[in-house]
Amino acid sequence: MAKSENIPVPAVRRLSLYLRQLEAFNEDNRTTVSSRELGEALALSDAQVRKDLACFGQFGHPGIGYRVPELIQQVRRILGTDRISHVLLVGAGNLGRALIAFRGFAKRGFELVAVFDKDAAKIGEMTGGPNAIRIQPLSEMPATVRKHAIRVGILAVPAAAAQQAAEEMVVAGIRGILNFAPVTLQVGAEVEGASVDLAIHLEQLSFQVSGSPA
Amino acid sequence: MAKSENIPVPAVRRLSLYLRQLEAFNEDNRTTVSSRELGEALALSDAQVRKDLACFGQFGHPGIGYRVPELIQQVRRILGTDRISHVLLVGAGNLGRALIAFRGFAKRGFELVAVFDKDAAKIGEMTGGPNAIRIQPLSEMPATVRKHAIRVGILAVPAAAAQQAAEEMVVAGIRGILNFAPVTLQVGAEVEGASVDLAIHLEQLSFQVSGSPA
Repeated sequence: MAKSENIPVPAVRRLSLYLRQLEAFNEDNRTTVSSRELGEALALSDAQVRKDLACFGQFGHPGIGYRVPELIQQVRRILGTDRISHVLLVGAGNLGRALIAFRGFAKRGFELVAVFDKDAAKIGEMTGGPNAIRIQPLSEMPATVRKHAIRVGILAVPAAAAQQAAEEMVVAGIRGILNFAPVTLQVGAEVEGASVDLAIHLEQLSFQVSGSPA
Repeated sequence: MAKSENIPVPAVRRLSLYLRQLEAFNEDNRTTVSSRELGEALALSDAQVRKDLACFGQFGHPGIGYRVPELIQQVRRILGTDRISHVLLVGAGNLGRALIAFRGFAKRGFELVAVFDKDAAKIGEMTGGPNAIRIQPLSEMPATVRKHAIRVGILAVPAAAAQQAAEEMVVAGIRGILNFAPVTLQVGAEVEGASVDLAIHLEQLSFQVSGSPA
């Protein structure tokens, strides 16, 4: 298996797209798929599909193509989502509470096991409805990270508080931060950061609905 | 100017990335940039940058490259974000309230001017803090869409309510829907849909922090 450092970032991004398309095929009870069919569904060439998947191993079967359930398992294993990953959340405001209630994470193999906030008034409060989670103070983060073997954290605090919160996450042992605040975080090279830019989607829609600019 | 139908979707996506990088250059007081520099900052080839931008017009200056503030304006014009666009929101739950408070939209040329919810208990409530917006019933959507010339709507309702809400948005005149619910919407071909898949970012982080699978 190739080391992740040698794999192009866009190929990893497309792996998530392949997985979603394969899951859709699987729901339609498709058992095999060719690189051409997989590519067509995603507006990619068959060569691109084969090249991307070849970064991670040899998955096709001559004369058959890819076996759908098998490739789903293999892609999940590569992404590390074939088993449940524990995730924590920092920030129990509106966005944080929405993320706690979001059912899409569990479907993808992520379980939100801890929530932290620096607001003393929120500490101890139960949030999240049926899957209630107690809001903890930031001081408990290192112990919780160790206890649940958490590597990835979601950061959903206001922009002004994001950098300090990120630093506390790193100190606590978090190695990947998904940042919802509209600021660029400065974290060490040992920490992976990803930002969710909610406005970028609106921008793309804006282009599509505005049609051809004059 | 090419019609949007003839422009590859990935080129439009990269337009948003170019815009963000150009804005970063602009904040650093860079006045010009070459396709190579712009590409390097985004891990793309200079040929890709030139090819993408050529889909939309002729922006470079021989011997100079691209003028940063000029290209920013041109890209914003192409995306339709050079002027304020009015946007509405359906769903005043936790996620909806987080989106109302999100400052990143205004920075990108989007103004949230109306919020709708089907919960009678929420109607009339003011939400959004300093930029308070009154929550309206869905029945008022068509008139509000006309009044504010709204074309794009954000859908932030639970998965089970998303399809019906989307249909009401389309009837009201919305032509682009940004969907946060983890379901695929069935809307007519005249409506552009985009889904925000919050889990996809976690999946990508999962790959990065898990390193090389054995």
